[in-house]
Parts: sequence; C-alpha cells; structure tokens
Amino acid sequence: MSKVKNALSTTRMEDFAGWYQAVVTAADLAENASVRGCMVIKPFGFAIWERMQSILDSKFKELGHSNCYFPLLIPVELFEKEAEHVAGFAKEMAIVTHHRLEHRNGKFVPASPLESPLAIRPTSELIIGESMARWVKSYRDLPVLINQWCNVFRWEMRTRLFLRTSEFLWQEGHTAHETEDEAVREARTMHELYLWFIRDVLKMYCIAGKKPAHDRFAGAVESLSIEAMMQDGKALQAATSHYLGQNFAKAVNIQFQGRDGAMHYAHTTSWGSTTRMIGGLIMAHGDDDGLNLPSEVAPYHVVIIPILKGTGQDGEIIEYCQKIRSSVQMRARVFIDLKEISPQNKKWDYVRKGIPFICEIGVNELRDESVYFIKRANDLEKTKLPLEEFAARIEELIQEHDDTLQQKNEAACKLKLVTGVKNFEEVKEFFSRDTGFIMAKWAGSEKNLASLEELAVSIRCLPITQSGTLGKCILTGEDAKIDVVLAKSY
Amino acid sequence: MSKVKNALSTTRMEDFAGWYQAVVTAADLAENASVRGCMVIKPFGFAIWERMQSILDSKFKELGHSNCYFPLLIPVELFEKEAEHVAGFAKEMAIVTHHRLEHRNGKFVPASPLESPLAIRPTSELIIGESMARWVKSYRDLPVLINQWCNVFRWEMRTRLFLRTSEFLWQEGHTAHETEDEAVREARTMHELYLWFIRDVLKMYCIAGKKPAHDRFAGAVESLSIEAMMQDGKALQAATSHYLGQNFAKAVNIQFQGRDGAMHYAHTTSWGSTTRMIGGLIMAHGDDDGLNLPSEVAPYHVVIIPILKGTGQDGEIIEYCQKIRSSVQMRARVFIDLKEISPQNKKWDYVRKGIPFICEIGVNELRDESVYFIKRANDLEKTKLPLEEFAARIEELIQEHDDTLQQKNEAACKLKLVTGVKNFEEVKEFFSRDTGFIMAKWAGSEKNLASLEELAVSIRCLPITQSGTLGKCILTGEDAKIDVVLAKSY
Repeated sequence: MSKVKNALSTTRMEDFAGWYQAVVTAADLAENASVRGCMVIKPFGFAIWERMQSILDSKFKELGHSNCYFPLLIPVELFEKEAEHVAGFAKEMAIVTHHRLEHRNGKFVPASPLESPLAIRPTSELIIGESMARWVKSYRDLPVLINQWCNVFRWEMRTRLFLRTSEFLWQEGHTAHETEDEAVREARTMHELYLWFIRDVLKMYCIAGKKPAHDRFAGAVESLSIEAMMQDGKALQAATSHYLGQNFAKAVNIQFQGRDGAMHYAHTTSWGSTTRMIGGLIMAHGDDDGLNLPSEVAPYHVVIIPILKGTGQDGEIIEYCQKIRSSVQMRARVFIDLKEISPQNKKWDYVRKGIPFICEIGVNELRDESVYFIKRANDLEKTKLPLEEFAARIEELIQEHDDTLQQKNEAACKLKLVTGVKNFEEVKEFFSRDTGFIMAKWAGSEKNLASLEELAVSIRCLPITQSGTLGKCILTGEDAKIDVVLAKSY
Repeated sequence: MSKVKNALSTTRMEDFAGWYQAVVTAADLAENASVRGCMVIKPFGFAIWERMQSILDSKFKELGHSNCYFPLLIPVELFEKEAEHVAGFAKEMAIVTHHRLEHRNGKFVPASPLESPLAIRPTSELIIGESMARWVKSYRDLPVLINQWCNVFRWEMRTRLFLRTSEFLWQEGHTAHETEDEAVREARTMHELYLWFIRDVLKMYCIAGKKPAHDRFAGAVESLSIEAMMQDGKALQAATSHYLGQNFAKAVNIQFQGRDGAMHYAHTTSWGSTTRMIGGLIMAHGDDDGLNLPSEVAPYHVVIIPILKGTGQDGEIIEYCQKIRSSVQMRARVFIDLKEISPQNKKWDYVRKGIPFICEIGVNELRDESVYFIKRANDLEKTKLPLEEFAARIEELIQEHDDTLQQKNEAACKLKLVTGVKNFEEVKEFFSRDTGFIMAKWAGSEKNLASLEELAVSIRCLPITQSGTLGKCILTGEDAKIDVVLAKSY
C-alpha cells in the first residue's frame, strides 16, 4: 500500500474552492441543508463556534454590554423608516405573508394572509432602536449597551458554507449614546476588540480599516472592518463596526432630555461578527491535510488515541491514557477517543479536524512512560517525549502551535502584499495573473470605480494607520494622500 | 409619607394575571414587541435565561449530547411527510412566500414569490431527521445525540410574556437509537433531568408524568412532561420529552444496517424546554413585592448598595463595599451598584428583581465593620451581621434562601393538592369555586373527556409513580386503576 500523501483529495494549488469544500466536509464542520442556501452546522463546527462565542461574549460583558433578545420578524413598515437601510436590504429579504397552512386538494398551502407582511431580520437596528426609544428618556438612561446572539437571514443566490449562506448565526451589538464622540469611540473600541480577536486569538493576518463611503453599511456614517487575507490572496471581511450617527435614532425616535434640558437624538452604533469567521479560519490556516485550529477555538488541544491489540495489556494502555489525560487536563482540553474505529482512521480524522496534538499510545509508550504525538501545525511532525516532560511543557507546546500557525499565515500573506503598483493598467495586469492585497493611493472620489468593479476588485478599506505621504491615485492619476487596500474578496 | 406596603401595585389576591404582568414589568424582564405576539427579553430576563442555559447545557454535554445548528426555514413538503405532525402544527405556522421587497407606489411590497413556501420552524424533528438520515448508515453510527438552542415560531392568537408568545427561545434535543429500549430510556433520562432541574434547581413543586394518548406531541408514541404547580393552582407544562417510535425515522428514512445485516428504521426521541420556565419561576416564587430567584439562576446572589451622603466618608464607604465584595466573591455572585440613583430606589428595584441578599452599606456598617442586609425570601427580613460572619456564612445563607423558597412553594402547593374527589360532579363543583391539582382515577378511555374540556380542565399527566390501587374513574364511574392529575393550565 502506498503511503497517504495528503488527507484530502483536492489540494489548494489544484483548486482552492474545491479544497475549501473538501475541508468543510472532511473536518465534519457543516453540510448543505435541503433548504436552498441554508446550512447545517455539525457538532465539530458548532463546537468551534461555541468557543468563539464564549471568548467574545465575556469580552462584551467586561466592556459593560448585556445580552438581550429581540424578535425575529420585523414589520416591513418599520424597515421603511430608514430609506437607505431598506434600500440596502430589500433585495434579499425573506418575507412572511401567511400564518397558517390549510389542507387543500391533498396538499398543505399557505392560508390566513397577514394584513402587513413581516420580514425575517437581516439585521436588527430598527427593531432594537424601537425598544431603545421606549427605554431612553433622559441622558441618565444612556449609554444603552446591548448585544444579541441570534440567526439572521439574507436571501443569497450563490451560497458557500460558512462564507455566504442565506441564514447565518452572528452576534449583533447595538448601543445608544449621549454624544457623537462617545458613540464614535464605542464603534472604534469594538473594532479594536474584533482586531484583537481575529489577529491575536484566531491568528489571522488582517488589516483594520474604514470602509470607503460607497461601501458603508446601509444607513451608517462610518463603517469599520477587519479585512483578513486568505491563502489565495482574497480578502474576507471578518467583522464590522458602524457609527450610525443620528440616522436610526431619528428614524425610530430615540430622543432624550439632555443635561441642557432640551431634547436630543441619541447617537447609535452597531457591530457584528458571524459564523463566517469559521470559513476564514479554514482559508487562513488550512492545508492539504485539512483544518488547523488556533488553540483558543480548538474544541480539544490534545486527543489521545489508544492503540489496542486485543491483548491483556489493553486495560493497562487505557489506564495509561487516563494518566496522560490527568497530567495535562488542568492546562489543556484533552479527550481520549475510545470509539471502535481503527486507530489509523481516528488519527487521520483528527488531522483533518486540525487538532493541535494527536497522541498515539500503545505498548511502547506504556513501557517507557512516554507520549508519542503528531504536531499538526508542523506538517504532522512526529515527536516522542517522556510523559513528565510532555505534561510539564504542554502550555509551551500549545503556545508554539499558535506561533507556528501565525508565522506560516503571516509568511504566506506577506508574499501576497503588493506595493509599488503605479497606475490602473498595472492593477489590471496584476489581477489578470495573480491575487493579493495591493496597497495603493486613492484620491477619495468615486471616479473610475466602475473599472475596478469590472475586475471584481474593490477598495477593501482605508487602513486605520495612514502613512500621510503623497502619491498618485490608482484610479485617476490625480495627487492622492489616502492609503487604500485593493483586493478581490469573498 | 406613608410606608410602602408592597413593591407592586397589584397583589396576587386581587388579580393574579395582572400581578404576573406587573412582576414582568417591575423586574424588568421583558416587554411586548411591536410585532404581534412577540417579546423583547430585556437584560435582566435574559441573564436568568443564560443561567438556565448554562446549567442545562453542561448536563446535556455530560450525557454525551453535542450542540448543532439546523435551518430556521423548513420546506412545507417536508412537513407533510409525517401526517399527524403537520396536522398538529398547520394552524400556527408562519409561512415565507417571497424573497424580496419591491418599491411600488411609494411603498415596499413582497416580490419574487418562492416556488415552494417555507415554514418557520415550530420544532425541528423533520429537518433534523433529514440530516440524521444522511449521517446514519450502520448501527455503528448510532446513537446520534444532538441538541440545539434556538428560536421557534408558533403563531398564537392570545399571548402572554414568557408563557405563550409566537416566537420563543428553547433547546430541542433530538436523538436516534438502534433499539426501542434505548430510545425509551433516553426520553426518560431527559425527563428525569428536567425533573431535577425544575424541582431541585428552580425549586418548583411539580409532578413528573406521562401525557395521556390524546394529548401527546404530534407524531409521538410517548410524551412525558413536568407539570409544575403555580401559586394560583394552575399547571404549567414546564418541559417535555418524547419517544417518537419509528414514525419520524420512516417519514425521513433514517435507516441503518443492523447487527443482523438487515436494514432497520431508527428509534428517535425529542425533548425540549423553553423561556416559558421564566414565567414558571415568577408564578411559583413571586410575591406581592415582585420576583424571587432561586440561587442557581439568580444573576447575582448579593447586591451591595452604598449609602453615600456626599461627605468625605463616601470614598471609605465604597472601599468598604469592595471589601465586602472581595470577601464573598469566590463563593457568590456579587455586584456593587454605583449608579446615580437614590439608594431607596435601588433597594426596591432589587427587591422587585428578586435578588436574594440586598446589602445597604453606610457609615454605621463602615464603623462597626458589619453588613446590613435584607433577606428577600424571608419577607424582606432585616439582618445585621459582622462582616466576618457574613462572609463565613454566605454559602449557608444562600442554601437557607433556597430552602425557604422551596418550603414556601411546597406549602402553598400542597394546600392546592386535592384528593378524595369521588365523581365528575365533585370535579365540576371544585373547579367552579377553586383551582388546584385533583389526584384522581381514570379508566383510560376518551369517553366524557369533552365534559372535562368544557370546564377548561385537562388530564395533565399520569404520574410516573402509580399507586396501583383500584378506584372509580372520575369521568365514567367505571373501575379504574390509573392515577391522573386534573388541573387547569397555562
């Protein structure tokens, strides 16, 4: 039998999109549902989401936010209150028009039409704003700092698991403030929190910046995003924070009596992150053997596979596995897999799932009290350590694992970071043969944006850290100061 | 000024339904949304739900269940696959028929009709079963043990916050097994877990039993429920577990190759509990001052209110409050309220919210290093303890709080537990002047059930522990062995 070369049938080089789908399937993360555009998030995929939720949720709470729950269905009239907002979402809303099924001619058909149609929330600024309008009377009631974890729905024509599905899970934070300053600061604080999460927890190479005006959230005054670079050089917008000005406060009447005794509209923000980040993880850290998981979101750091031979020693081997578990479980998430599947299949299953350390424990390890394990992030490097050392070094090993993922990702991304492109012709030339993030100058006008769109390229963001130097606009050749990132995107 | 007699304007005696609504509002738990039949769960209400989720979720996982996520929308055709099931839910389903809004004559109207309508999930047996059918090939793939936390939708005509709303939050467990025995055992294990949660964690008086055949979940072979008694003597069905036989497995084709090499249908179960339990908490433990929270689901056990006088001592008082917090925070959830509201208003706010121990800390407490506090469960009994003793006894105090709630609830409920009712006339007579749980005999037939329904009374359950004695059927006068509980219900 020939040695397994890679755990997946498709490599990144051959077909990146096909490889992505292969990882989702091989790591048992999710599958397409029978409902068009919707997905089933399977146990392993959901366990990653639960880790993400738990980390973000505790940070939101530390910053003073409380969780709430608001209705799934939003009256269409309410949506109409913010003109840009409704226009931005109208093309992709699932609309409820009936509230009963009736049996007619052998099948069930919609009956009892509603007087006014209801939309399944694509986002909740208006329905939450309506509650805020009831809650806020005086400046003393501000700020209102809330968040909800829920499902949202945006009808999508072409879907891909985690990256773009009609229904997805997310958290949406919504806050109301007394002053513009405070609201702008809130949006930026949450933007920094997302940057920390995506760069420092998920170990993904990314650029934090402002969206150009033409690409802001529908109804926002300022939109901030984290643009993470995928291994194929495309951008993934991984989380966004918006300063909404007084637009939504005016639409739903969030007014308060200020310190000056007069009535004022509140300044609001919203910010969100979604199950899309799981897609980002795959494309940032995955390799031709499957997924690679940063330790903070890995359901397990260590999986122990007992190699049993059906002999009298099996009991001792299992006991030894338990001893290994006990020796690290205070500092690592560890699991002994006792399922009746061949150890070889188990091993490859955990390789594909991206578990950092996969231990194979048999008679040899039992005899010399050692741990034989695979380092997933280091191209499946095989290592043997005395149990004592393995246990003593487990936190260090986990840190090394994360560092390796981060370094590999950064090295790959830096190769796709392009500077020195002088004009639109060179942009066109670059994207005709390659992908990547082009760092360029922009004069800030929408002139010639259409030619960029023709290449399926967009201005991803205006990085928060601007160089301030003068150059030539990549679109118009005019003098330009603004640094921008151009890329294709998911 | 007259002393505040009770913290709520309506008492339980005057108007139980009005009192319930007053507690929901006064404890700031939830409010009606502008969308008919839907609710907004506010921060304090949601914090209680998060506690419930965390306790149940860890138990589900200990028992081997994994969380997943399945689509919100279910094709109507899929619903039709189980005849009883679709008939049971058809009258209350929200139906999506369009996937776009179009601007026409100055307003947005539904456009782009769907080829086949989609129902918002009222429950997910079929859509989850469809995935299970893909996952299960052999007996080695069984059992499948999954759960999801999500929103569901059942169109309701008359709604009450937490008790009956069109949208609510719940968890739904779904499992598939090789044998009937194993599936029946699973449904019963989860029933016992719910009993533990409702009786031992939420401290609610309740009876665990089987639903009579005519009141089973649509499509189930056996339905088990926890019937909790509210202070007004009505029953609240607080959680249910169903053994579904092979009905759903046949509908969606969950087939596996058995140990005998032949193909078999799986045996499935489902079990759920909802935000309705928060309504149950209110009606089990609330009093004329508001809510009372069992410690396990209380967002805080101890709230500390500094009594500041605007003098130089304020800083010291706040430091002393922090010292109190430090001395108990390893064993209790504690919060210092520094908001700029009068201490008196804060106190009544926490009384209405049902916080077990409300501490008022001013110059006196600072001077003699004591803690002055109100015991919420003991009719707001005022207590003063040296800080050292308060800290040393905090766990004991929490236990006493829970015992008090449990004893009060049990004492009130036992008064409304009625035995010795001999025939239907006496049932009628009882419910014409009172409410409560009547323990009676039933012959098991549906004869004369309609007369019971006319009284708005139903057979709540057949208690798990049956006496086995012979008596006369409360409906027909025939010889009867089955013990049943009759009650009005929410």
